Amino acid sequence: MRRKARQASRPDNRPRFWGRHAVAAALANPERVVKRIWATREAAAEFDLDPSIPLTFADAADLGRLVPGDAPHQGIVIEIEKLPDIWLGDILDGAEEGRPLLVLDQVTDPHNVGAILRSAAAFDALGIVTQDRHAPPESGALAKAASGALETVPWVRVVNLARALEEIAEAGFWRVGLTGDATTTLAEALGPPKVALVLGAEGEGMRHNTQSHCDALARLPISERMESLNVSNAAAIALYAAVTAK
Amino acid sequence: MRRKARQASRPDNRPRFWGRHAVAAALANPERVVKRIWATREAAAEFDLDPSIPLTFADAADLGRLVPGDAPHQGIVIEIEKLPDIWLGDILDGAEEGRPLLVLDQVTDPHNVGAILRSAAAFDALGIVTQDRHAPPESGALAKAASGALETVPWVRVVNLARALEEIAEAGFWRVGLTGDATTTLAEALGPPKVALVLGAEGEGMRHNTQSHCDALARLPISERMESLNVSNAAAIALYAAVTAK
Repeated sequence: MRRKARQASRPDNRPRFWGRHAVAAALANPERVVKRIWATREAAAEFDLDPSIPLTFADAADLGRLVPGDAPHQGIVIEIEKLPDIWLGDILDGAEEGRPLLVLDQVTDPHNVGAILRSAAAFDALGIVTQDRHAPPESGALAKAASGALETVPWVRVVNLARALEEIAEAGFWRVGLTGDATTTLAEALGPPKVALVLGAEGEGMRHNTQSHCDALARLPISERMESLNVSNAAAIALYAAVTAK
Repeated sequence: MRRKARQASRPDNRPRFWGRHAVAAALANPERVVKRIWATREAAAEFDLDPSIPLTFADAADLGRLVPGDAPHQGIVIEIEKLPDIWLGDILDGAEEGRPLLVLDQVTDPHNVGAILRSAAAFDALGIVTQDRHAPPESGALAKAASGALETVPWVRVVNLARALEEIAEAGFWRVGLTGDATTTLAEALGPPKVALVLGAEGEGMRHNTQSHCDALARLPISERMESLNVSNAAAIALYAAVTAK
């Protein structure tokens, strides 16, 4: 997969990841540069650590000071470089039918984006597409919520989401935007084998210009008791519906 | 709905809720006792506050000290009493067909339980059932994730989950337990109009004794790339599948 090189970051700007799933996946990802490792002796013994990466043994309390308050580090913390960028064309070229693509418009909460990556991996999505200015950076909280999927699901950051949606349509995808205002249900809107699922932020939803770049707008069959679902839950349902509609 | 009275708590043990959705729902719930309110003048003006509840005006920074670090209080914090207990029989008696029941075995993360309550409200679930010793208490983080649903979705806390599952079967529910080990898919396991969806904690999953009290075990159709979904995402998919299988 062709990637742009990302400029190496200054050490004080490098994200830290923690938690065994997130760390194991980062260490297993050949594209991921790991700069430093801090671990308890017990946790370190469970990993096959590359001896070329500086390793500092630390007790759990010291590790606690390397991560945001209360973060469940599980005995290991790593300092990493962000992944190289991925081009949209790379995931569209030769995309297999039946594997959905997710497009997120201004979903900024790192826990939600992490959980969405996890579901995207679980349902074999082609990848996720976000707008660079309105998406969270790679971070420990995001990597933890993704439970390893940050390392395996292609994440394309684009400058212009409307232009990206045009490119997605040109590649033969049927673009379904989820919005509570739609009259069509998600099940009715699905059908074509190559589908891009477009979700907006909770609260505001998709921007108008994003909606106008969808082929169909659809709603989840939810009660009037709730205005909306959590966006990661909506994404999980949309992926499930797309995969089982095959 | 018949409820056991809960003993009034000492003021220093009372949970605090924050965020406009969670607070508005608590204030609108006749079963919810609100003991104190702190708010910015701007936020207070947006609510129709009961003048019998002590109200303290505060600036955003003061409110920030009343909630856990970084919690998005949105200008209003309230101190509340926990809701009175609800009996299982109350939600089983006369349960409408087509409204699923959710049973959670040892799901302890408050964000996940909150998000599950939100999805339960969205899909008109009858309620959720948890085991008292292995479920989170009502808290601000849980209420925030529930986005108001903590006030509207009946939450039954039982001492013995296996006994509760027997009572649920006696009330005519088909109990479907979600586990990655099952060979049947969720779509295949659904069918009977009264369904109880049983989910275990991430990682460990359902306990053996809980599984043995299910009528069917089913898996979500996920890829081998991921071991499991986030439990609130799994619950959202299960609710969607149950409601659309009608």
